[in-house]
Amino acid sequence: MSGSLPASVTVREVGPRDGLQAEGPVPIEARVELIEALVRAGVTEIEAAAFVSRKAVPSMAGAADVLALLPHPDGVRYWALVPNLRGASMALEAGVDGLSVTVSASEKYSEKNVRMSVAESVDEASRIAALAQGRVQVDVVISCAFGSPYEGDLEPSMVAALGQQLSEGGATSLTYADTTGMATPRRVASLLEATGLDVGLHFHETRGTGLVNAYSAMEAGVTRFDSSIGGLGGSPFAAGSAGNVASEELVHLCDDLGIDTGIDLERLLEASKLLVSIVGHPVASRVAVAGPRWRRAQE
Amino acid sequence: MSGSLPASVTVREVGPRDGLQAEGPVPIEARVELIEALVRAGVTEIEAAAFVSRKAVPSMAGAADVLALLPHPDGVRYWALVPNLRGASMALEAGVDGLSVTVSASEKYSEKNVRMSVAESVDEASRIAALAQGRVQVDVVISCAFGSPYEGDLEPSMVAALGQQLSEGGATSLTYADTTGMATPRRVASLLEATGLDVGLHFHETRGTGLVNAYSAMEAGVTRFDSSIGGLGGSPFAAGSAGNVASEELVHLCDDLGIDTGIDLERLLEASKLLVSIVGHPVASRVAVAGPRWRRAQE
Repeated sequence: MSGSLPASVTVREVGPRDGLQAEGPVPIEARVELIEALVRAGVTEIEAAAFVSRKAVPSMAGAADVLALLPHPDGVRYWALVPNLRGASMALEAGVDGLSVTVSASEKYSEKNVRMSVAESVDEASRIAALAQGRVQVDVVISCAFGSPYEGDLEPSMVAALGQQLSEGGATSLTYADTTGMATPRRVASLLEATGLDVGLHFHETRGTGLVNAYSAMEAGVTRFDSSIGGLGGSPFAAGSAGNVASEELVHLCDDLGIDTGIDLERLLEASKLLVSIVGHPVASRVAVAGPRWRRAQE
Repeated sequence: MSGSLPASVTVREVGPRDGLQAEGPVPIEARVELIEALVRAGVTEIEAAAFVSRKAVPSMAGAADVLALLPHPDGVRYWALVPNLRGASMALEAGVDGLSVTVSASEKYSEKNVRMSVAESVDEASRIAALAQGRVQVDVVISCAFGSPYEGDLEPSMVAALGQQLSEGGATSLTYADTTGMATPRRVASLLEATGLDVGLHFHETRGTGLVNAYSAMEAGVTRFDSSIGGLGGSPFAAGSAGNVASEELVHLCDDLGIDTGIDLERLLEASKLLVSIVGHPVASRVAVAGPRWRRAQE
């Protein structure tokens, strides 16, 4: 470790939304149960639902019902993904603590994914921020921030300028997402040079670099990361796209590096057992499979 | 990236031995074909065979036949794992360029794995080194160097002292192996502090930290790494033990970091396609699945 690492980082759990969205529909009760298990593990920032068209994304139906059933312990914030003003309005009504809005840095990806230009998407984000003004946080997730599967590498200065524009449009925080696993520590360093360190980062394991990128960003001083329980996730619009950085792996790594996440790994592993029973298949998270480094062999 | 990275690293490919050993037996011709594909990709250090009991490890039978069929282009070195003096003698007869000898840093793991104490294992390594003296290289791989699934964490100073003893016993190089995925960048840094940087490192992805550890070691200045095509591997004696760092992922990462490996990634991916057809199942290497970061989406 040649860099100095932060004393603590905030892990935003995106499994109940970004993760489960990529799965077949899961009953509302099971989604609530999973979130409750995450809260018990000490997770405080949770992307809990998406207010999207039930027809387009059947796995996310019943967002308001999920939110209505959630416990509200001190310090826990629930986020919802909202694709447009209508979704934002429903999410606010349902009592979310934060709105998560996606804007792509790639023109072509934006077109394919949300059938809007980047400029239209920026405008919609501003309208959402205006609606939320002073009531809840608005985090804009900039997808393809480390490259696009269509246009290839994107200039960090261009991506940072987009972030600047979104902040001016009312975003209270920004998360840069490596949607298709094109980031490496070099690309992370280049983008951070352009954006500064007050950002969230969202990595995928498409090419096995998710945790490496998170580690290199922690060395640089970044303290906000998205991850998904089980390593679920993956975009249907990105070929070969694999899941998010696994929360179990991120917390396990941070634990041994002495970086406080506030999350109890053993309890998080209980949540991942529950997740496996909910989705009905093994998950990609290797710590979920092997257990923590202090687990001993049976003799 | 807060550290400075080396200009080049040497990747020793262990797939044909460490990888295939964990699979069902593969015909000699297919093993040769795989090694030929690796050589075409520019790999120069290859663990090609193991001179072990055919009864104990049926997948490694025919080691001498494999070596007899291999091409010998300039600069390519073939290594063979030898568990004892008898195996070493057979390997030398078969014309290997290097002997790979395993000594465990964990007393209990040593007992379970090779039914020898660590001290007995050190003695056997010395006898092997004496036999090889001046003819071929002898690399001793110290297993459980970052912790044991039985005893837990091991003192870096103890592990480094074992390495020192092995060097004095005639080992021409040392490789420290994280047999059961207990290493993290902090543990890597601690061990390197005790050993110095002139070491090979061998990481597993048991807990998703293999590539992170390799990256942190490169930042520290280490330039020798083991990896397996496809991310194959895993010890039958370590519960939940997952495969080696995937060669495709390591080379892909190095490529984008500007670290020369001498290996052509596109050709390496041809070798991994061949590997998948040989083993008959998908492999863990995510770059093998998703392709390099410069692969574009089909429109």
